[in-house]
Amino acid sequence: MPLEPSRTVDELRELRELTGDDDGAQRVAWTDTWERAREWLRGKLDGLPLEQTIDPAGNQWWTLRGKTDRAVLLGGHIDSVPNGGWLDGALNVVAGVEVMRRLAEDGEPAATVRLVEWADEEGARFGRSLFGSSAASGTMDDQDDLRGRRDAEGTALPDALAEHGVDLDRALDARSELEGAAAYLELHIEQGPVLESMDLPLGVVLGTFGVERHLVTWRGQAAHAGSTPMDKRRDALAGAAKLALEIRPIAKRAGEGAVCTSGNVVCKPGIVTSVVETAEQLLDQRHLEGETLARMLSEAKEASERFAEEEDVEVEWSRIWRIDPILFDETLIGFADEAIREVAAASHRLPSGPLHDAAEVARAGVPTVMLFVQSLRGLSHTKLEDTKPEHLELSVAALDRLAARTVDHVAASG
Amino acid sequence: MPLEPSRTVDELRELRELTGDDDGAQRVAWTDTWERAREWLRGKLDGLPLEQTIDPAGNQWWTLRGKTDRAVLLGGHIDSVPNGGWLDGALNVVAGVEVMRRLAEDGEPAATVRLVEWADEEGARFGRSLFGSSAASGTMDDQDDLRGRRDAEGTALPDALAEHGVDLDRALDARSELEGAAAYLELHIEQGPVLESMDLPLGVVLGTFGVERHLVTWRGQAAHAGSTPMDKRRDALAGAAKLALEIRPIAKRAGEGAVCTSGNVVCKPGIVTSVVETAEQLLDQRHLEGETLARMLSEAKEASERFAEEEDVEVEWSRIWRIDPILFDETLIGFADEAIREVAAASHRLPSGPLHDAAEVARAGVPTVMLFVQSLRGLSHTKLEDTKPEHLELSVAALDRLAARTVDHVAASG
Repeated sequence: MPLEPSRTVDELRELRELTGDDDGAQRVAWTDTWERAREWLRGKLDGLPLEQTIDPAGNQWWTLRGKTDRAVLLGGHIDSVPNGGWLDGALNVVAGVEVMRRLAEDGEPAATVRLVEWADEEGARFGRSLFGSSAASGTMDDQDDLRGRRDAEGTALPDALAEHGVDLDRALDARSELEGAAAYLELHIEQGPVLESMDLPLGVVLGTFGVERHLVTWRGQAAHAGSTPMDKRRDALAGAAKLALEIRPIAKRAGEGAVCTSGNVVCKPGIVTSVVETAEQLLDQRHLEGETLARMLSEAKEASERFAEEEDVEVEWSRIWRIDPILFDETLIGFADEAIREVAAASHRLPSGPLHDAAEVARAGVPTVMLFVQSLRGLSHTKLEDTKPEHLELSVAALDRLAARTVDHVAASG
Repeated sequence: MPLEPSRTVDELRELRELTGDDDGAQRVAWTDTWERAREWLRGKLDGLPLEQTIDPAGNQWWTLRGKTDRAVLLGGHIDSVPNGGWLDGALNVVAGVEVMRRLAEDGEPAATVRLVEWADEEGARFGRSLFGSSAASGTMDDQDDLRGRRDAEGTALPDALAEHGVDLDRALDARSELEGAAAYLELHIEQGPVLESMDLPLGVVLGTFGVERHLVTWRGQAAHAGSTPMDKRRDALAGAAKLALEIRPIAKRAGEGAVCTSGNVVCKPGIVTSVVETAEQLLDQRHLEGETLARMLSEAKEASERFAEEEDVEVEWSRIWRIDPILFDETLIGFADEAIREVAAASHRLPSGPLHDAAEVARAGVPTVMLFVQSLRGLSHTKLEDTKPEHLELSVAALDRLAARTVDHVAASG
């Protein structure tokens, strides 16, 4: 069976019909719709000479045994956010199906190839993303916290997982899955505007950004909007406003690829007749280099202290979350460039702002690379998410070429 | 009965015990607690030679007939916000009780004197402040809107009023109450920090600020915080942040007394991983001169359009509410200065940022003035609201002197 990239597009549309509605994709992990998607995926791979297993974290694996047990992994996730897009995650696994078909058709590969569908990449129901891949990589260290998590309806996370055959206490046993892994390949939509702005269908991902995520709380004094002279105010919003603007020069100084975002400011009391007493500001900073990220953070903190003094307010930083930058494998990046150039005019190297399961696998020490395919208007996590069908087809072809190169490389170096 | 200002302080404490709790004053208009306060007030005036009436808007009147029917009005409100302070509004009426006692003791005054307790100054339950005074002044023009209003529990405003004997359709009949009014005097806590910062107990209010109140909506584009380069963002929060800072130089250019406040910014989607798509910003601008207020508004609008262009976002202004500045009576302002100087070392003239019932009465053409007494730390609408007892006593004495002067003036010019 030769590779048929157009079949991937047809199958993605089929999945959209099966698991989406007028508001978008509804394949939220640990729900019936998600199970329907997983069952559909199993159906697509039935009949191929693959071993099917589900690991203790709920990840689905399909293994095509090769001449060596050292394995090339192709991975993605079929879960979506509520009202999500048709491609985020699903492209990876459905393209992987097509590559597995081609490989199986070609007979025993030079190295083992495994397709994995990671459980709960999005964390949409319980707010814990990268569940399955972090269990497999062994980085999951928050099981105590996870035990206490509940969804919006009050269902506890362990109960929801149990309904899908997963025992939270045993999830880390999924670590054994990565023992023979020699390479990990993941194709994903870019979810950003870079490739579209360069008019390129495909790009190679250099790694995922390190992220520093903070809640910055400004505390001033509520005061009547009519009776408090301007020079007697302690306006918490003024501090937040200054920081919301200052993060732009901070990102600029950090050079290309640096991003800083203030995604929310909550004002209290938040009424038209009062100076803002408390402003709770979210800050997200990302960079591919750890040192640069640390400098961006310290510059933002210093600026906030200066603003607090100027405004006679207090400022307090509380870390929500952080992750180090994760760099992908140089050899695989080279293969990815070559694979892209074979199917498209040019390749482009770019960092990934969003995290992906690939980051977890890379953290476990498995050489990793990702391909990005252009996202129209950079939109994702919305039903408006889209990619041109011809670009989707190119992406399947590029993934296949990358898989072929990597199998040869793993077999040769094994 | 000579004036006993300390009795006013005692009675205010008594009222606090009767109608407050650990969270503060609970005399929200159109509630049982409010009725209890009104009943208490009636009890304080029982036995004096006064005519007691309640007008069709629910305002309570006590009339001491004088040698002329032309009347000097003393007014305040006994309602509070939930968890409010003990003095806001109540000081006016309880001090008025003491002045009525002194006047009644002195025999038939040269002019009629009337004490009024305005219904629902705060608008805490239905969001419509100055209810009773705007009915009496005839400026109430929103009865169709009021008919549809409901409180947080879903009770319709007309039903709540009916429980307290007020027929919304007849509220404007209260206009006849102001027919013979020749002067209106109101004592109030400052609710701001000006007198405290000048170490003065009392001040004369020049008038109430004109107010321009707008919702400024900024519309950009939601985009992933990790994958969207800084130069490809259309960040709605950036526009709101710039305006929150720009209103300060705008107020400064408008000169003393100008205030501009951004009391809230609501960000959507408001999550850490997204550039802000929509920022809804509240803006409140006040000045005692109409032309200056108009210039402040147009400067803010021009600035917002400049920011919208700089940030590649859209901005839209929608007026929430406005009121013209209301200037108090020059003759009465002179009397008030003299009255204050008789009881305290010095007087100070200042505008009122908050609106008061006095503004409604002045709009109806009745010569009006207000006295402010110092607020500690400028706090109001909180249980922390306070004024030194000795300052409260001075304020009662000043109101009494002002009333005496005004009665003589009205009698002489009648």
